[in-house]
Parts: sequence; structure tokens; C-alpha cells
Amino acid sequence: MTSRDHGDPGDAPSAPPPLTPVANGTRPSAAQEARTVAASTNVGTLATLAANGDPWASVVTYGLLRSGAPVLCLSLLAEHGRNLARDRRASIAIVAPSTHTDPLAGSRVTLAGVAEQPTGAEHAAAREAHLAAVPAATYYIDFSDFSLWVLRVQRVRWVGGYGRMDWVTAASYASAEPDPVRPHTAEVIARLHTDHANALLTLARTFGGYPDTISASCTGADRYGLDVRVVTDRGVAYTRIGYSEPISSIDDVPGALEVLVGLAGS
Amino acid sequence: MTSRDHGDPGDAPSAPPPLTPVANGTRPSAAQEARTVAASTNVGTLATLAANGDPWASVVTYGLLRSGAPVLCLSLLAEHGRNLARDRRASIAIVAPSTHTDPLAGSRVTLAGVAEQPTGAEHAAAREAHLAAVPAATYYIDFSDFSLWVLRVQRVRWVGGYGRMDWVTAASYASAEPDPVRPHTAEVIARLHTDHANALLTLARTFGGYPDTISASCTGADRYGLDVRVVTDRGVAYTRIGYSEPISSIDDVPGALEVLVGLAGS
Repeated sequence: MTSRDHGDPGDAPSAPPPLTPVANGTRPSAAQEARTVAASTNVGTLATLAANGDPWASVVTYGLLRSGAPVLCLSLLAEHGRNLARDRRASIAIVAPSTHTDPLAGSRVTLAGVAEQPTGAEHAAAREAHLAAVPAATYYIDFSDFSLWVLRVQRVRWVGGYGRMDWVTAASYASAEPDPVRPHTAEVIARLHTDHANALLTLARTFGGYPDTISASCTGADRYGLDVRVVTDRGVAYTRIGYSEPISSIDDVPGALEVLVGLAGS
Repeated sequence: MTSRDHGDPGDAPSAPPPLTPVANGTRPSAAQEARTVAASTNVGTLATLAANGDPWASVVTYGLLRSGAPVLCLSLLAEHGRNLARDRRASIAIVAPSTHTDPLAGSRVTLAGVAEQPTGAEHAAAREAHLAAVPAATYYIDFSDFSLWVLRVQRVRWVGGYGRMDWVTAASYASAEPDPVRPHTAEVIARLHTDHANALLTLARTFGGYPDTISASCTGADRYGLDVRVVTDRGVAYTRIGYSEPISSIDDVPGALEVLVGLAGS
């Protein structure tokens, strides 16, 4: 037996390949994906080091500085607060909200680095960022045993589901922006399937690489285009329909689709 | 200013105290709570140690052995798989599904210990446990770079929300059982509010410690009773209505309430 990725014994489901080139497979960069995941929620799991060096996982809430650095508000009475006070190395895993039934099909990120207690103007910005993301913190943020911590991000690992993953440098993470469309994916999908079902089918056949598409449904949306699931006589496949230009809000989706449909008909 | 828990500056909301003793405040033990959280989902965040000893947080799926020990299925190509192969110390944080808007109001647990690759009969049991909890694993569990790991639980920290938390010994975690009612809390609440609203009000007044209850709503359910939110002229408070006997399924709720209402009227 020939060797495959992951030593695949060969019985995993396989997808039919495209019959024509995918016209525009542009997706968000890994740095943008990482920023998008980080901006998608206010809860993550922190890994810190216990006194004996054992790794300790615990749930935390966070806000984000403009650099994407997470701001935590931790009690020194809690395990993770005591751990950080002793050893500032930490990482946080954040999972984007998802409707996938398989948790590993969704997007998540690990931000690793060193936690520091901010001072001066950064303390004020950190306080504001945490409270904006975690309104309930207003009840304890000023308790004397609670401290703000900024995680100085040094390593970023983004995983976008099976087979989609990458390392991101600290600099590219800090300078990237969250995707403006991704948080509204469910709304985009709902609108597409009610108002633009025929357009989706046409575009999957023309630009998606599957001229034999029988039916097409949208599974994801971002500023660069749509993730699309196509059904063909050869089986089910996943492909991409890219916009001609990146969009900046979900209100731009109908216009971007119209441009593509125009191109498909010309 | 007198010192308070967490150095409370004094502006946090306060609840009116009960006017009569709460008749039966029995709740699940911390060990039962921890087992209930662990059994409530199939996804958690693992903390492992990188080559330089840095803590690494990453998302994993898991099943549970009968002892409550998590069974992971990890690729040696992934960061956490490489970490465990080098240093078997690990902990996993698991968050129970919740409808709370404040993530820190929900229940979660950290299980810490040492991961081992099971052999023989335990390998078969571990494989079965993982596949039962994570059906998608059938596509990669037999890939040559994936291994099963059993986390030998040595320390357990359960946090049930603000001010509810405890350490649990490994032995009491292993011997406790998940609560049979808790996973169906939403259904219990829906039934209570449609079919037993008057009973809830009566019981909050009679057994819940708040004879001045104006309205009562259920916020949680387990085999020992109900968590109840009461509105009084003095403010909002949270209390407990305990059943006369622990119940074993949600079908026992109406009968258990009937017994209490009978006692209240006698």
C-alpha cells in the first residue's frame, strides 16, 4: 500500500476532484483567520504552569487589545492567577462558535506567549477592552485580588478544521484584521439559500471547478468569497467561489454575486 | 471599610437573605458535579508542555472510560501529540453546555494527571469509548500517526459558577456518577414553567426560605432538586427546593413535586 497523509488506511471518504480549475480560491490568510477566531468570542481556555511545572488548563474570559493581545482578569485566589504570578508563561486556546456537529471541523486558535500586568495607559486600555468584551466583569474587576493580565503573543497556531492549519508570526497576527463577514456567516447562508440559490448553482458550475454540479449549498463566508458544498454524480465535494474584489460587509454580498453572475454569462 | 470576599469594594449587587430556613439544600457533591460536566460534552481543551516547558493549550475531543478518565485520540503530527510523547503530564478543561450569557456563571472542570497509551483490554475499551463519544473519529482513529491516550486523573477542580467550586479527590471522582437529570435541565425548566408554575411558587414560599416570593422560576435541575430564582419585594434571590428523595430521571420530576406540594399543604 502506498503511503498517504496520516497513514490513511484508505477507507476514509474521498471527494471527486474538480473538472475545471477553481477560478479564484483566495481565502483569508492564516493571520486573518487567527484574528477572526480571537474576535469571535470572549471565552477561552488558558494553559499555565503549576508550582511543580505541571500544565494547568482553566476557563477564562478575555477582551482584546487592538493588537489582538488577550486581556485577562484573574483572581490571585484562583489556580491560574497563582500560576501566572509565579511563572508568566501561558497560552490560550479559543474556539470560534460553530454549528458543526464535529468539533474538530471548526476553527480554533492557540495564542502562546508571556503574560504581563499592564501599567499606565495600557492598563486603562486593557481595562476598557476587558469590560467591553465581558460586561459581567464590572462586578469584580476592581476587587483587590483581581488583576489584569495582557498575554504578549509570541506564537500563534491556527487550525481551520481538517487539513487547514498554519503557524502565524506574532507580527502578522498583530497587524492582521478580523474578517468582517465571517461573524455573520449564518445570515449570509440563510440569505443565499433563499434569494440566490440559482446564482450559487451557476457560480459553482462556472467558477467553482464543478461544471457537473447538481446542487450547491454555502458552508462558509468571508470577505473574499464563499465556501461551497457541491453535489455531483461523482459524489460530494467542497470548493470555493471567490469574489472579484474583497467585500467589507455582508451588505456587499448581493452586489459581489451579481458581478460574478455577470462574468459567468459573458 | 471592612474586608469582604475578594476585597469587594461594596458595589456588587446583593441578594436578600432567606426569611425562613431553606428546608433541604442538598445538592450533588463536587465529585458528582465534576463527573456530570465531564459527561456533558465530547470536546475540551488540553494543556500540555512544549519542548521548552511552555504550557500549550489546544482543543481536543474525548470519550470517557467508566472511571471517568478521558480518552483522547491524538496525532503525533500535531503539537499536543508531540508534547505528550515527550512529557506525559497533561490537564483538560471541560465546559458544560450552558445558556448563561456570562461564561463564568456556568459549570466547568479541570482534570489533571498523566496521559498513558492504553494496551490490551483497556485499549479496546478506550477505542470504544472514544468512538462512542466522537463518531467522526472513525475516519482517522486507525491512521498510523494517531494514538489513543488515557488521562490518568490525579487532581480534579470543579467550578460551578461564581462562589461554587471545590477540589475533588481522584478516588471520589472515579467512583461518582454523572447526574441523570442535569443534561435535561432545559426540558425540566420548560415543563415546570408550563405545567407546575403554581407548585414552584408554593414550594419557594414554603421550603425555599422566601415566604415573600412574588414569582419563582427554575434555573437548574438535578437529581436532588431544583435551583430557583425568586423575586421578592426585597429584591431577587437564588435558592433551592430539594426533593424528599433523589430522583433517577426527569420523568420522576412531577411525582417528586407532588410529594413536596402535599407536604407544603399538610
